[in-house]
Amino acid sequence: EICKEYVQSHILLIIDENTYQLGAVDSVSGMHFRGSKRKVDYVLAYHYRKRLAQHQQGTNSGQHIPQEPLGAQVIELGPLDALEEEKRLQREEYEHNLVAAGLEIEKDAENKSQGLSFVRIHAPWQVLSREAELHKIKMPTKKMYAIKEEGGILKKLNEIWCKLTEPLQPQVPQENTKMKSLSYPFSREKMYFTLIANNVYDAAYPLHDLLYQEWARYGVFYKFQPIDLIRKYFGEKIGLYFAWLGLYTEFLIPSSVVGIFVFLYGCITIESDIPSKEMCDQRNAFTMCPLCDKFCDYWNLSSACATARASHLFDNPATVFFSIFMALWATMFLEQWKRLQMRLSYFWDLTGLEEEEVSFFSLIILKLTNLYISLQIMLTFSAVFGVIVYRITTAAALSFSTNETTRSNIRVTVTATAVIINLIVILILDEIYGAVAKWLTEIEVPKTEKAFEERLILKAFLLKFVNSYAPIFYVAFFKGRFVGRPGHYVYVFDGYRMEECAPGGCLMELCIQLSIIMLGKQLIQNNLFEIGIPKLKKLFRKLKDGRTELKEMNTNQSKDPQQWDLDYSLEPFTGLTPEYMEMIIQFGFVTLFVASFPLAPLFALLNNIIEVRLDAKKFVTELRRPDTVRAKDIGIWYNILSGIGKLSVIINAFVIAVTSDFIPRLMYQYAYSQNGTMHGFVNHTLSYFNVSHLKAGTQPENSPFAQDILFCRFKDYREPPWSPNQYEFSKQYWAVLSARLAFVILFQNLVMFLSVLVDWMIPDIPKDISEQIKKEKSVLVDFFLKEEHEKLKLIESFITRDKHKHKSGTKDQRSRAASFCQFNQSQKGSVASFSSQHTEV
Amino acid sequence: EICKEYVQSHILLIIDENTYQLGAVDSVSGMHFRGSKRKVDYVLAYHYRKRLAQHQQGTNSGQHIPQEPLGAQVIELGPLDALEEEKRLQREEYEHNLVAAGLEIEKDAENKSQGLSFVRIHAPWQVLSREAELHKIKMPTKKMYAIKEEGGILKKLNEIWCKLTEPLQPQVPQENTKMKSLSYPFSREKMYFTLIANNVYDAAYPLHDLLYQEWARYGVFYKFQPIDLIRKYFGEKIGLYFAWLGLYTEFLIPSSVVGIFVFLYGCITIESDIPSKEMCDQRNAFTMCPLCDKFCDYWNLSSACATARASHLFDNPATVFFSIFMALWATMFLEQWKRLQMRLSYFWDLTGLEEEEVSFFSLIILKLTNLYISLQIMLTFSAVFGVIVYRITTAAALSFSTNETTRSNIRVTVTATAVIINLIVILILDEIYGAVAKWLTEIEVPKTEKAFEERLILKAFLLKFVNSYAPIFYVAFFKGRFVGRPGHYVYVFDGYRMEECAPGGCLMELCIQLSIIMLGKQLIQNNLFEIGIPKLKKLFRKLKDGRTELKEMNTNQSKDPQQWDLDYSLEPFTGLTPEYMEMIIQFGFVTLFVASFPLAPLFALLNNIIEVRLDAKKFVTELRRPDTVRAKDIGIWYNILSGIGKLSVIINAFVIAVTSDFIPRLMYQYAYSQNGTMHGFVNHTLSYFNVSHLKAGTQPENSPFAQDILFCRFKDYREPPWSPNQYEFSKQYWAVLSARLAFVILFQNLVMFLSVLVDWMIPDIPKDISEQIKKEKSVLVDFFLKEEHEKLKLIESFITRDKHKHKSGTKDQRSRAASFCQFNQSQKGSVASFSSQHTEV
Repeated sequence: EICKEYVQSHILLIIDENTYQLGAVDSVSGMHFRGSKRKVDYVLAYHYRKRLAQHQQGTNSGQHIPQEPLGAQVIELGPLDALEEEKRLQREEYEHNLVAAGLEIEKDAENKSQGLSFVRIHAPWQVLSREAELHKIKMPTKKMYAIKEEGGILKKLNEIWCKLTEPLQPQVPQENTKMKSLSYPFSREKMYFTLIANNVYDAAYPLHDLLYQEWARYGVFYKFQPIDLIRKYFGEKIGLYFAWLGLYTEFLIPSSVVGIFVFLYGCITIESDIPSKEMCDQRNAFTMCPLCDKFCDYWNLSSACATARASHLFDNPATVFFSIFMALWATMFLEQWKRLQMRLSYFWDLTGLEEEEVSFFSLIILKLTNLYISLQIMLTFSAVFGVIVYRITTAAALSFSTNETTRSNIRVTVTATAVIINLIVILILDEIYGAVAKWLTEIEVPKTEKAFEERLILKAFLLKFVNSYAPIFYVAFFKGRFVGRPGHYVYVFDGYRMEECAPGGCLMELCIQLSIIMLGKQLIQNNLFEIGIPKLKKLFRKLKDGRTELKEMNTNQSKDPQQWDLDYSLEPFTGLTPEYMEMIIQFGFVTLFVASFPLAPLFALLNNIIEVRLDAKKFVTELRRPDTVRAKDIGIWYNILSGIGKLSVIINAFVIAVTSDFIPRLMYQYAYSQNGTMHGFVNHTLSYFNVSHLKAGTQPENSPFAQDILFCRFKDYREPPWSPNQYEFSKQYWAVLSARLAFVILFQNLVMFLSVLVDWMIPDIPKDISEQIKKEKSVLVDFFLKEEHEKLKLIESFITRDKHKHKSGTKDQRSRAASFCQFNQSQKGSVASFSSQHTEV
Repeated sequence: EICKEYVQSHILLIIDENTYQLGAVDSVSGMHFRGSKRKVDYVLAYHYRKRLAQHQQGTNSGQHIPQEPLGAQVIELGPLDALEEEKRLQREEYEHNLVAAGLEIEKDAENKSQGLSFVRIHAPWQVLSREAELHKIKMPTKKMYAIKEEGGILKKLNEIWCKLTEPLQPQVPQENTKMKSLSYPFSREKMYFTLIANNVYDAAYPLHDLLYQEWARYGVFYKFQPIDLIRKYFGEKIGLYFAWLGLYTEFLIPSSVVGIFVFLYGCITIESDIPSKEMCDQRNAFTMCPLCDKFCDYWNLSSACATARASHLFDNPATVFFSIFMALWATMFLEQWKRLQMRLSYFWDLTGLEEEEVSFFSLIILKLTNLYISLQIMLTFSAVFGVIVYRITTAAALSFSTNETTRSNIRVTVTATAVIINLIVILILDEIYGAVAKWLTEIEVPKTEKAFEERLILKAFLLKFVNSYAPIFYVAFFKGRFVGRPGHYVYVFDGYRMEECAPGGCLMELCIQLSIIMLGKQLIQNNLFEIGIPKLKKLFRKLKDGRTELKEMNTNQSKDPQQWDLDYSLEPFTGLTPEYMEMIIQFGFVTLFVASFPLAPLFALLNNIIEVRLDAKKFVTELRRPDTVRAKDIGIWYNILSGIGKLSVIINAFVIAVTSDFIPRLMYQYAYSQNGTMHGFVNHTLSYFNVSHLKAGTQPENSPFAQDILFCRFKDYREPPWSPNQYEFSKQYWAVLSARLAFVILFQNLVMFLSVLVDWMIPDIPKDISEQIKKEKSVLVDFFLKEEHEKLKLIESFITRDKHKHKSGTKDQRSRAASFCQFNQSQKGSVASFSSQHTEV
C-alpha cells in the first residue's frame, strides 16, 4: 500500500528531472542512507519504549517496544505492554512487506530506553519502474514536437501580452513551452526511448528554495504562479488547487473593476438622486411613527438622511446590471476553469488517468437528511435567532436610557455589537462543524478514500454554508417584513416589537452585515488562524518534544540534525479541504449577494492576493511535504461551485426585487408619478396612520409635540385612515408586489438563458488543445512505428547473415527461421495495435 | 473515400457473422461476380449515353458517355457531350482509385446506345482487414466471459420480469446475453486469436426476412425491438435511433397512464365542481356584455355551461401535479437515455470510438440570427396572424347572419375552420422550411459532414418549432388578453374587436388547438406522408424508368433481375433527420403544454406504437440499404431534447398560472371567500359594467331585453361603475397577479431543483456497466499476457535448443543471441504496454 503511494509521489519527480536539469546536489546532508549513495525517499517515524522502562508507569508520552524475543516475555506483559507489543509486531510485519516489495530500509538502532526512531526507505530503480508501469504513469519520450502557434494578429497580440506580463512571470527555469515531449504510459520496455538517467534521484530539495523565492513569498504577490513547478513538487492535486486559486484570483480582477465602477456610479449620481434629496430636505416634514412603544418619540424622516444617501451607493440601477454581470461572470469562470483543467491535464499528461466514478449520491442525499445535520442546522438557526433577540432586547433596554447621546447612538451600537456577535458565533461554529462533519462521515464508514473525502466535503460545506449565510439571509429576506403596522405591531415575547430595518432600507443593513462578516471572517479566520495556529502548534510541539526527549536526542542523533529530524518537527499535511472550503465560502460572498455589495469582489481579490502566498508559504515551510496525489479535476468542488452559481441567480433576483427599492422606484416613475420624475417618491412610499388609533399604553410618553400631531407616517403601502378599508394593503402594494415578482421571473430566466448561451458558445476543450491531442497521437504512432521498423530491419539483417553462413541448415534451423519470421510479423502487428490503441486514449 | 465508408459499413457485419451463425446461403442469385465466388459488396450505378446517340437531342433523361478514345472526338463534342465526357473521365479516375486501393470491380459492358450501368465492387479480405485496423474497429476475441448477474431478490425479480415479457420479445436468434466476448481494436496481427472465418461474407441478406418478420410488421407492434439485430444490419447510428424511439415509447406508457388518471379525476370531480355548477345554474342570471358590437346581444352565462364543464376536465388541481410529474418525467427520460446509450456503447464496443468535438456553436449562434431565418419566422408569425384575422373577420361576418342556428354555431364553426387552416399552413410550411434549412446550410459551406448535419438540424428545428407552436403559444398566452373592456375595446383594422376566449377560459381553447394540431399533424404528416409519398415516388420512378429503358434492359440483363437491379428501384436513404425531427416535435407537444392537455402522452404513445413499425418497414422494404455509420450517441438531438425539457418547466408554470383558473380559485377560496368554499367564485371573477357607458353605435341593435338591463358583466377584475376609479384594475387584480407570478417562481424553482436532484441521484453510467468495463479490461490484459507468454516460451525453447547444437558459436552468433534476448524483453514490454494502454481506454 505505502509502496504504491510512495512511488506515485516520487516517480513523477524522477521522470521530470531530466527535463528540469538542476544538477545533482550530493552534498546535502541527511538525504541519504549512512555511508551510501542510496537516497532516502520516504521516512516513517515512531516512538519506541523499551521493556526495561516498563515500571516507569508515570510517563505517558513514550511507547514501549520489547527488543527481546517475544516468547521469553509473555509472563511479564502488562496491558500497556501488550499494546506496545502488538504495535511492534505490526511494524515488523509492515517493514517485512516493504522489503518483500523490493524496497530497501534503514532503521535506527533502538539503543535508548525510549525515544523517537525513524525508518528510512529507499526505492530502487526496479521498484520505481515496476510501479510506474502498474500505474500507467506517462513519461516523456525522446521525441519532441512543436506546439502549434497562432499566426498573424493573434501571434502579435500574444507577443505583446507576453512582453507586458514579463515582470509578472516568476523567475523559474522556463521549460520550452513551444515544445512538448511526447509522453507515453511508462513501460520498462520503452525505457531506451527515453532520456531517463540512472542517477536522477539525486536532487530533489533545491526546488524548495526556488519555490520559496519565486512563489511562497509575499514579495512576489504580483507574479503569476509557477504552476508546473508546483505540480512537480507537490503533485497534481495540489497543483490543481493552486491553478484554480490563481484563475479565480485573476477572474476577480475584472469583477473588482466593474464593482468599483458601479460603486463610483453610485457616488457620482448621489447628488442627483431625488428620493434621497427629498428625504434630506428639511422642508419635507415627514413625521414618522415611533420606532418603539412608549419610550420612542415621533421622529422626522430627514434625521435618516445619512443612511438614505449611503444606501444609494449600493442601491442604484447599476447594481442590476452588476448582478447580471456577476451571474455571467460565474458561468464564464466555471467554463474557463473547465478549459484550463483540460489544458493542464493535457500538459501534465493526465488525459488517460482513470478515476473512480461517483455513484453514491443517492446515499448522500439520504444521509444528509439525517438527524445530526438537522440538529446542527437548528443550532445555527438558534444562534441567529439568539442574536436577533439580543438586538431587540438591547435596543429596547438602551431606549430606556435618558442620556440623549446614548439614545441617538442606539441603532449604531446595537447593529455593530450584533454583527460582531454574529461573526464570533460563525467563527466558533465553523470550527465545531468541521469536526462534526468529520465525525459524522467517519461513523458512516464510506468504502473508499475518495468517497470519504467527498462526503466529508458535502457535509462540512452544508454546515458551514448555513452557518456563514444564515444571518445574511435573515437580513436580506426576513428582517423588517413581519413588523406589522402602527397600532397592530407584531410582538415577540412580552412587549418586544419585531425589529425593523433602518429608514434607508434593508439593503443598507444587508450591505453592512455582508461586509463585516466577509471581511471579519477573512481577516480573522483565514489570516490570523492560518498563520497563527500552525506557528503556535509548531512552537507547542517543539516545547513538548524538547522537554521529554532533548536530553536523549543530544547523545547521538541530534548533534547534526538530519533532514528527517527537521521535517519531523513540521505539521503533517491534512488535505486541501480547508483551503477549498474557505475559497468556496468566499465565492459565495462574491456571487450570492453581490447585488447588495458590489465591492465584495474587490475585497475578495485583496484577500486572495495574500491568500495565494500564504497558502504557498504554509505548504513550503510549515507542513511536511505531502504525498503527491494524482488528480484529473477538482472533484466535488466543481459541483459545489456550479451549485452556488445557480443559486446566486435566484438570490440576486430576490435581493434586487424584494430587498432593494429598485422596483418601487421604477413603478413610481412610470406608473404613479405625475410628471415622469421621481419627485414625490418618498411621500408615495409612506402610509398614513392616525395617532389616535395607537393602542393605549403604546403612545410616546414624553413627546414634546404629541399634541400637534394627528397623523404619523410609516413605510408601507397601506390604505390611509380615511379609507373604508383603513390600513389594509393598498392597490399599490399589490401592483408593486406583482412588478417585483415579474422582475424575479424575468431576471432569473434571462440570466439562465444567457448562462446556457455562454456555456454553449465556449467549447469545454480549447480548440488548440484538442487539435494538439490529435496531432500528438499521430506523431506518437509514427514515432513508434519508425523505431520498431528500424529494430526489425536490424534483426532481419541478422537473420540474412545467419542464413548465408549456415547455408546447409538443418530442418530445425529452418523452422527456427520460420518462427523468427512469424515473430517479426507479430512485432509489426504489435506496433500496429499500438497505434490503434493509442489513438483511442 | 468511398473505400473507407464502404469498409466501415461491412466490416462489422463480417465480424459479427461468426457470433451470428446463419449459415452461408450461396444459392442467392445476383449476389456475386459473374462466375465467381466473390461477393458484391457495394454497387455504384450510373446512366450512360453513347456518342452514337448524340444527335437525339430531344431526350433529356439519359446521360452520354463516349466509348472511343478522347482525342478522336474533340471536334465533334457539343456542350452536352463535354459534360458527359467529363463525367466519364471522373468515373474512370474514381474506379482507377478503387482498384489502386485494392478493391476488385466488375463492370457491365456498355453495349447499348444508352442505359443504366452498374459497377459492382468486391472488397478482398486484405482491404477489409487493413481498413478495420485503420478504423480501430473492435472485434471479439476467442475469450468469452460471464456478465455479472445480480443475486438474490433482484435476480428473482429479473426472472419474473423475463417470464412476463416473454411474449413481447421478438423471436430472433437470441445471442447469449449472459456471455460477452472480449473485443479488441482490430489488428491483423491478432487475427489468429479470433474466430473470424475466411468465407464469412457469403451471407448477408437473410437478415432482411428476419427483420421483417420480427420487427417491421404492424403485427408485432407489442413486441420489443431486436435492437442488436437492427444495429448489425443498419449500423450504430440507425440502431441508436430505434433504441431511442423504443425507450421514448416505453416512457410514454407511465405518463399516459398518469395522464388518463388525471383526466378521469377531472371526469369524476366534475359534478362536485362548484364554479361550473354555479355557471350552469339557471337561477344565477349573470347577464354578460355582448361579444361583438351592434349585432351581438347580451347573453346569459349559463349558456356557456357546457364549455365550463368541459374545461374542468383539464383545469383541475390534478393538472398541477401532472405538470410537475411530466417535468420530472422528462428529466428521468433523458437520464435513462444517457444510461441506455452508455450500455449500448459498451455492448456494441463503441467505448473507444472517437468523435469530432463540436466547437462551432459560436458560429451557429451568429448564423441563426441571420436574415433568412428571421424572414422565415416572420412568415410563420404572419401566417398565425392571418389565421387570427380570419377568425375575427369570419366571426364578425357570420354574426351578421340572421339565421339563428348559424349564429349559435358561429364559435364552433370559426374555431374548427381556423384550427384546420392552422394545421394546413403548418404542414405546408414544414415542407418548405425543411428545404429552406437545407439550402441555408449549403450556402454556409460547413467543414465536415457532421458539422453540416448539426447545423441543418438546428436550423430546421428552429423553423419547425416556431411553425408548430406559434398558434399554440398565441392561444395560451396572448388570446383574449388584449381585448380591452366593455366601452373601451381594442380594435384591429376598422371596427373589428380583438378576439376573446370562450367563456370556459382559454385553457379549453388551448386544449382543442393542441389536440387538433398534434393529432392532425401526426395522422397526416407522419402516417399519410410517410407511407404514401415513398410509395408514390417508387411508383413514379418505376413508371419513368420503365418507359425509357425497359426495352433495352429486356435484351440482356433484366431477364433474370439481379439483386442490384432490384435495389436500384428503391428510394435512397437520406438520413435520420426527418424521423428524429418528427419525434422531437412530438416530445414538445407531450411536455411543453402538458398542463393543458394531459392526454397528449396517450396520443403520442398510440402514434409511436405505429411509428416504430412504420419506420422499420420503410427501412427494410422501401429504402436502399443505407451505408452503416458508426455513432456513439444521438448527437445534437440530445441537446435539443434537454432544451425542450427546460423550456417546458417555465411554459407549464405559465400555463397553470396565467392560462388556467387554478390561481384565482385558490385565491378566492383562501382569501376572499366568506366561508372558505368556492361558492360565489363566478360572481367574484365577473366585473360590472354600466351599459349606459357603451359607446354610441356599439350597443346591441335588436336586443329584446335591452330596456331591462342596467349592468352587464364581463370576466375581469375591475372596479365597478360606482367606484371613484371606475373600470380601473381592482386590488383583486393585482393580488391575483402577484399570486400567479409567485406561483411561477415557486413552480419553476421547485421543479428545477427536483430535476437537478434526479439528475444527481441517477448516475450517468449504470453501475453494472462501469464494473464490467473495469473487469473486461483486466480480463483482456490477462488474456493477452497469457498468449504472449506462451509464444515467448516457445521461442525461448528454440533458442535453448539452438545453443545446445552450436556450443562453439562465433562471436557473431553470440551477439545475435543477445539481440534475441533483448527482443524477448521488448516483446514482454510490449505486452505490458498493451495492458497499460488498454486499461486507459
